[in-house]
Amino acid sequence: MPTPPACSFASDNAAGAHPLVLEAISAANVGHALAYGDDRWTHRASEMFNDLFGRSVSTLLTMNGTGSNVLALATLLRPGDAVICTDWSHVNDDEAAAPERILGTKLIPVPADRGKMSAAQIDERARAIGNLHHAQPGVVTITQATEWGTLYTIDEIADICDRAHAHGMSVHLDGARIANAVAALGGTLETLRDMTVGAGVDAVSFGGTKNGLLGAEAVIHLGQIDRARSVYLRKQVNQLSSKMRFVAAQFIAALEDNRWLEWARHANAMAHRLHAGAVEILGSQAIDAPEVNSVFPIVGADAAEALRSWCFFWEWDATTSRQRWMTAWDTTEDDVGLFLAGLSAVMTAG
Amino acid sequence: MPTPPACSFASDNAAGAHPLVLEAISAANVGHALAYGDDRWTHRASEMFNDLFGRSVSTLLTMNGTGSNVLALATLLRPGDAVICTDWSHVNDDEAAAPERILGTKLIPVPADRGKMSAAQIDERARAIGNLHHAQPGVVTITQATEWGTLYTIDEIADICDRAHAHGMSVHLDGARIANAVAALGGTLETLRDMTVGAGVDAVSFGGTKNGLLGAEAVIHLGQIDRARSVYLRKQVNQLSSKMRFVAAQFIAALEDNRWLEWARHANAMAHRLHAGAVEILGSQAIDAPEVNSVFPIVGADAAEALRSWCFFWEWDATTSRQRWMTAWDTTEDDVGLFLAGLSAVMTAG
Amino acid sequence: MPTPPACSFASDNAAGAHPLVLEAISAANVGHALAYGDDRWTHRASEMFNDLFGRSVSTLLTMNGTGSNVLALATLLRPGDAVICTDWSHVNDDEAAAPERILGTKLIPVPADRGKMSAAQIDERARAIGNLHHAQPGVVTITQATEWGTLYTIDEIADICDRAHAHGMSVHLDGARIANAVAALGGTLETLRDMTVGAGVDAVSFGGTKNGLLGAEAVIHLGQIDRARSVYLRKQVNQLSSKMRFVAAQFIAALEDNRWLEWARHANAMAHRLHAGAVEILGSQAIDAPEVNSVFPIVGADAAEALRSWCFFWEWDATTSRQRWMTAWDTTEDDVGLFLAGLSAVMTAG
Amino acid sequence: MPTPPACSFASDNAAGAHPLVLEAISAANVGHALAYGDDRWTHRASEMFNDLFGRSVSTLLTMNGTGSNVLALATLLRPGDAVICTDWSHVNDDEAAAPERILGTKLIPVPADRGKMSAAQIDERARAIGNLHHAQPGVVTITQATEWGTLYTIDEIADICDRAHAHGMSVHLDGARIANAVAALGGTLETLRDMTVGAGVDAVSFGGTKNGLLGAEAVIHLGQIDRARSVYLRKQVNQLSSKMRFVAAQFIAALEDNRWLEWARHANAMAHRLHAGAVEILGSQAIDAPEVNSVFPIVGADAAEALRSWCFFWEWDATTSRQRWMTAWDTTEDDVGLFLAGLSAVMTAG
Repeated sequence: MPTPPACSFASDNAAGAHPLVLEAISAANVGHALAYGDDRWTHRASEMFNDLFGRSVSTLLTMNGTGSNVLALATLLRPGDAVICTDWSHVNDDEAAAPERILGTKLIPVPADRGKMSAAQIDERARAIGNLHHAQPGVVTITQATEWGTLYTIDEIADICDRAHAHGMSVHLDGARIANAVAALGGTLETLRDMTVGAGVDAVSFGGTKNGLLGAEAVIHLGQIDRARSVYLRKQVNQLSSKMRFVAAQFIAALEDNRWLEWARHANAMAHRLHAGAVEILGSQAIDAPEVNSVFPIVGADAAEALRSWCFFWEWDATTSRQRWMTAWDTTEDDVGLFLAGLSAVMTAG
Repeated sequence: MPTPPACSFASDNAAGAHPLVLEAISAANVGHALAYGDDRWTHRASEMFNDLFGRSVSTLLTMNGTGSNVLALATLLRPGDAVICTDWSHVNDDEAAAPERILGTKLIPVPADRGKMSAAQIDERARAIGNLHHAQPGVVTITQATEWGTLYTIDEIADICDRAHAHGMSVHLDGARIANAVAALGGTLETLRDMTVGAGVDAVSFGGTKNGLLGAEAVIHLGQIDRARSVYLRKQVNQLSSKMRFVAAQFIAALEDNRWLEWARHANAMAHRLHAGAVEILGSQAIDAPEVNSVFPIVGADAAEALRSWCFFWEWDATTSRQRWMTAWDTTEDDVGLFLAGLSAVMTAG
Repeated sequence: MPTPPACSFASDNAAGAHPLVLEAISAANVGHALAYGDDRWTHRASEMFNDLFGRSVSTLLTMNGTGSNVLALATLLRPGDAVICTDWSHVNDDEAAAPERILGTKLIPVPADRGKMSAAQIDERARAIGNLHHAQPGVVTITQATEWGTLYTIDEIADICDRAHAHGMSVHLDGARIANAVAALGGTLETLRDMTVGAGVDAVSFGGTKNGLLGAEAVIHLGQIDRARSVYLRKQVNQLSSKMRFVAAQFIAALEDNRWLEWARHANAMAHRLHAGAVEILGSQAIDAPEVNSVFPIVGADAAEALRSWCFFWEWDATTSRQRWMTAWDTTEDDVGLFLAGLSAVMTAG
Repeated sequence: MPTPPACSFASDNAAGAHPLVLEAISAANVGHALAYGDDRWTHRASEMFNDLFGRSVSTLLTMNGTGSNVLALATLLRPGDAVICTDWSHVNDDEAAAPERILGTKLIPVPADRGKMSAAQIDERARAIGNLHHAQPGVVTITQATEWGTLYTIDEIADICDRAHAHGMSVHLDGARIANAVAALGGTLETLRDMTVGAGVDAVSFGGTKNGLLGAEAVIHLGQIDRARSVYLRKQVNQLSSKMRFVAAQFIAALEDNRWLEWARHANAMAHRLHAGAVEILGSQAIDAPEVNSVFPIVGADAAEALRSWCFFWEWDATTSRQRWMTAWDTTEDDVGLFLAGLSAVMTAG
């Protein structure tokens, strides 16, 4: 086997932090600042999110992705409300039942075509409204980009919001990888705004950690909310950072000069490069073109095992031998080249 | 008024991070590492906690203090169990009802003499056990050092553990400021071990953020637990860090060469220096000697207001004009001197 | 010892059901009726509650007292809200932490003078509003008659409602023994209306079981609510009766001809008779005059034990040898006479 | 249209109570009895359940079906555990998210073939155990007879229990209609014991209300449990009846002389009679033979509507025009005959 890449292809959260992020943290480490968000870095980050979305939004800095989703739902749910999500969604499948435990709420999973919900599924589930025996859906949550690496078009999101609002529900967008989605769908602030404010989304989990931050997320409400109550709920769901300036500083570094989009664009590009090379080795039927920063190739179990032990990645579905290779802000062209060389070696040997 | 100090006296969480902590984070920012704790920094931190406690403990790195307490309780509570705490405790009074929301559990507050619970209060509350109408206390939680800046002696903790265990309850120690407590009560690893393992404590929230870390806490179980379930519960209560190596790196920096004790010892010493100077200005009846890193002087409202607007601190109790001045790892002798000069100026003017 | 009474003095829920209640159940046992409240008995009971309160109220029939209180709070709480109650209140002390478990909410107990809260205590607790670290009180719950057998005056309830509403809180009245309270404070429908609608109460747990019903309670909202959501929440907190006609029939029997007041008046009268007789035996300092249907005499431990083993009652407070004797709708003058004879025998023997 | 039947075919909970049940309640309405289950009727009912199952079981009398299921799960769940159920199950689809709200737990719905889970589905879901991101299944709940009116064979239940236990899970059987199931599968006490104790079930929700009781259910633990804690949890989930003797009396009436089986056998027989008649009118392809007391015919929307407005029943699935006709303990042969006459009239007219 050739020399392995410097990075794994396990996940974008296996990457470290961008050097500019650490620089920003160091720069914020000067003197005293009041805890819990009453500091100038947090105020600055809030202003930058206003600029980003082109309106006065409500920004709640948080600490991890599950916590962001739980907080966003906590602020949207009315007493007794349930949540419509996909069966593949992070809230349903990868959050250790934190939503149920902390929110005391039912998640209603609808079957998803490669991670995406349809507006029609919302109509179907809305039929339960008013039936006292059935969970009452009050919030719809979608993921963009999805857990399957797929994307909703902006029109699809707008349709989902329209249907949800018509039924009196609100809409949450889990944007753990929103940067990759925006980069893929246009790559400008207008793309972001059309996808969220324009489409009618009520609240966004705005991911940072998977896109080069050390550990920083945000819940952004695009419309009017009871701000004091939301701030309170953040603490109640264990998402209040004490020395918040260091969370804020990370976002300041990422949002400045639209670096967050640049980092995500790079990760996406590396996935495309990886795909192009893998098609030559595996054939085009074994691997779909990526929409964002992950590809899901079919690689036989033995070959996958050999490759994995040389440069780690996760198996996506054991029954179909589907793997997941994920790129990150720091994946280099060399890393991709080395990984493809390994793939080639393994496939040739097999 | 003279030049104000470089630091506030608001709280130890208004301080930044120790430079060595930032260095350790930067040093850990190399290449890829699996997320969620399967990395060499997290393993190293766990080993260092074993060494610290002199036994094989279970270490769960977490992200904030409220989350640590909620996680510790989540791992100790049996179905239906309630929690005995003091009315002044952080879990009862400063955690936004997160314990009730996330744990679905009653906190039973007992009146506290300057933040401390007595073993007799546990006996009293244990009378509810077996009465189907009353909350069933199953866990006792105490804070060391307390929210009032007071300390339990090691014997007092042992007594509390004995009484709790006799009633079938377990004991949690909220050690958001455990470093200051250990520094004050002996300052050695033996002090720590006597106060926890020796006394019979079951689980500790081991604080880092208030003692010079950027944002890092840990829940330490001193005895045998279902480790996999505890790891799972950490995620369920929103306390799983994705890029955990950066949390671990902070503790590595703090535990190396017992720096955590040195930092806390310094904060305590600054509080003693502040107290000594303040006594000369306010008189000894207005301010008790600190046990750790906070003093609670009585300063009239006008003077307090003037002082506060010059160098910030929080009012502790409006009805008695009691203030709280808190020192941190980075408070200098100069800061204390300047603050006392300001105090003197204000009192003279008044 | 003389012949013991036919009834105990343990509790009004040790009594059976009034014969008219069983008759009404039998009368409702004809043919089929849709389950879950879509039946003519339930509709009739709702109309009778409208007549009772002199306005269109929202009636939710329930199954037990704890469930009623939990449901009432579930319908009043906004996301994140906490509840102000007294330390002696049933919700705080006698409901097995069901409110915390089901509502995920903190109960904030305030010290009560013989079971009663003051309006000033609400002001004091309201200071937490807007502080993100403190539980946010959103509902005040009081009990009428209290767990101590005491009564709020109508003016006191109005004051509590005024203060609560001024702080944006709503008010729940736990009326497990509301019949005894109304009977004692005037005994007319106007008394009931002044005490609830007039005073500004938002929702009432209207007790039936302790006043001669088999097992029937109701949550009454006096103002506008989202009815469909409340009906749903009733099911969600395990309080939806399947064959609801049989719950409704009980209230129909009780509300017809104001029997509920007659039954409660009788229970109260028996307590007064018991008090008058006991004063002659124990002295007036040992036993306060009852306000409703319970007296709390001081009887030495040995005498109390002898008496209890002859005719059962519960000890109220072991440290002061205070007992609780409670009368019910079915306590007779003969029962009281026999009990007093036993008391006399025991005290003479002692 | 002919004269409609005296009963509806809406549900077995639209029926009233058996006269012997009301008699038993009246007979228990004598004098005082301690509340909350410390009475001779409750003790007697517990003994009768011991005799029924042929071993010392733990009986917790409850008030409604949703509450019974929630209580059973509350007693079986370990901290953090999730529940495997079918997508059609009552806990998942008809309990208003009470399990999620009260238990803070995820229900993991598996797709069900006409209401039944397979043992293989348990294996599949067990793969999540030990993965900290996925809900940790700890309890399997199945319904017998199912919501679809189908039955597990005793061997199928034993297989499910074996698989569940092999994975460290416990098994709950929702027996809201267990009487109909036992009647159908053999009709003796041995049938019941083989289906539960023999098969390895851990806890049963033993239904009464749908089988002629006024409102009485029970949670039966077949093995060793912490009885005091279970009694406490019953109160905590709002299922503690105050005057419990009246719940107990209902079960005493039903269990005496195995009347519960007789009542259920009758309901089943009426469903078979209804099916036989309906086949002649609708054809055998439109209606499967019942296994217990419900049939699910395909009847066109207009005909169904005409029939429903004459004698009520619920639509089961609008998209396939499938209806549900349900018989009860009090359905007579005449009722069935009249209903079939109406069906014939409607189908002829159509």
